[in-house]
Amino acid sequence: MNERKRIAIIGVGLIGGSLAIQLHEKKLSSRLIGVDANAEHAKKAIELELVDEMLPLDEAIQQSDVIVLAVPVDTMVLLLPVILDKVDQQILFDIGSTKSQVINSIKNHPKRRRFVATHPMWGTEHSGPQAAKKGAFENKAVILCNAEESDADALDWVKHMYKKIGMHLLEMEAAAHDLHAAYVSHISHITSFALANTVLEKEKEENAIFEMASAGFESTVRLAKSNPAMWVPILLQNKENVLDVLKEHIAQLSRFKESIEKDDHAYLLRLIENANKIKRILK
Amino acid sequence: MNERKRIAIIGVGLIGGSLAIQLHEKKLSSRLIGVDANAEHAKKAIELELVDEMLPLDEAIQQSDVIVLAVPVDTMVLLLPVILDKVDQQILFDIGSTKSQVINSIKNHPKRRRFVATHPMWGTEHSGPQAAKKGAFENKAVILCNAEESDADALDWVKHMYKKIGMHLLEMEAAAHDLHAAYVSHISHITSFALANTVLEKEKEENAIFEMASAGFESTVRLAKSNPAMWVPILLQNKENVLDVLKEHIAQLSRFKESIEKDDHAYLLRLIENANKIKRILK
Repeated sequence: MNERKRIAIIGVGLIGGSLAIQLHEKKLSSRLIGVDANAEHAKKAIELELVDEMLPLDEAIQQSDVIVLAVPVDTMVLLLPVILDKVDQQILFDIGSTKSQVINSIKNHPKRRRFVATHPMWGTEHSGPQAAKKGAFENKAVILCNAEESDADALDWVKHMYKKIGMHLLEMEAAAHDLHAAYVSHISHITSFALANTVLEKEKEENAIFEMASAGFESTVRLAKSNPAMWVPILLQNKENVLDVLKEHIAQLSRFKESIEKDDHAYLLRLIENANKIKRILK
Repeated sequence: MNERKRIAIIGVGLIGGSLAIQLHEKKLSSRLIGVDANAEHAKKAIELELVDEMLPLDEAIQQSDVIVLAVPVDTMVLLLPVILDKVDQQILFDIGSTKSQVINSIKNHPKRRRFVATHPMWGTEHSGPQAAKKGAFENKAVILCNAEESDADALDWVKHMYKKIGMHLLEMEAAAHDLHAAYVSHISHITSFALANTVLEKEKEENAIFEMASAGFESTVRLAKSNPAMWVPILLQNKENVLDVLKEHIAQLSRFKESIEKDDHAYLLRLIENANKIKRILK
């Protein structure tokens, strides 16, 4: 288990790049191979020394023991079966934010058991290799989905790796993951995107916002900088759960609107007091 | 200007308490007097040495050179005229999050010019004297409203004080302040309250949220812990602006809903790309 692996990272952006740094720092890799369709990103990944070399996909697969898929989830469902076709005894895992469609894409694949479906709960609003961060993932949760469908050796190594980079492991079925992810991640991004659009639409004095913007504004709006290439497919793949949460969120906002319209002090107080209960969950 | 003042702080909570710490640290006060209707808070403020002593309102006014009003904005509009009645040559300023109604409450008061209307753009989601923080306000903006309606000596001292505690000054009319504050602060709080209520309503597995919650969730939901006693009156006093922004926000969220319902990749992409423009404002 302590033997270092040759690791190929498909997609050397924020997540792939940050993982590369950790794999190197924690002495998990003997060699890091990058693959990226974006020539700019490929160049940058080498410049920043995130990986030892960039190779075409097929060569990267042949020359590695472990393959990490760190691409947007729409590319993921297309690429995963293609890569599995070419895999022999390599370990393959993904780091995508949705799990059901990804797992479905290789459900009946003869090499299914070489694949481990994971979602490390870390990210920032920035993107590309230049956004890769040292010390990423530490003290965060990683979800392993449908673990019983993976080979023991693949699962063991992936768990070992995540523990070594400081994450705590949670296991659940893909459907449960996608439901929870809609609440703890996807809706926050939609809210933030919509809040940015609200401000950009209505507040013409951008200078005033810039000067007045407080920590509270920064905090609720920063996710609005997130990469569309990553988020459009996440929201569409997790459509049913996301719509469920989004409808409830609009209904909750409408209650605030109603209470303010009616100057209903008691109702507004109840709504805010109820929101305060989030302290139970969020310390 | 460098002479230290006897300063009374009415309301020794998060903001009043944090200001007390700064006034002392920056050697702006010769004596700090607290006033608080809440006996628990009064006791805590002494224990934490935020102020030198707690006094009843009338004595505090008589014994001070400067009076700070740091109470919820509904109490503010009731208390401000009463205090101005008792003021002789003291300087009086408030730190409330809304400005139009506060200023209206003393528009024709004979002592109007002793009052300076201010809004330091700093806060946290915590409340009470135990939430008071060292180094608060530094590098944030403070808005001075309708400055031409205040006496020069009062305005000068208040500006001097805010600069000394590290804030940069902005001046604007109360109506403009209330409009901008709805965008850069009030809507963020409503969104966060509503998001907390959404999650609490629909997601019964609180344990899953707690374990999975990422930095993004924390970031968009933390304001939901904010004090209702402070926020109910802010939202009701700034009703027109808040409703305007809130309606636009609901409309923006509905566009996300529509694009996801229709699997409209191009529309969703446009919405997110537009939201990314917030990078212009938020570095």
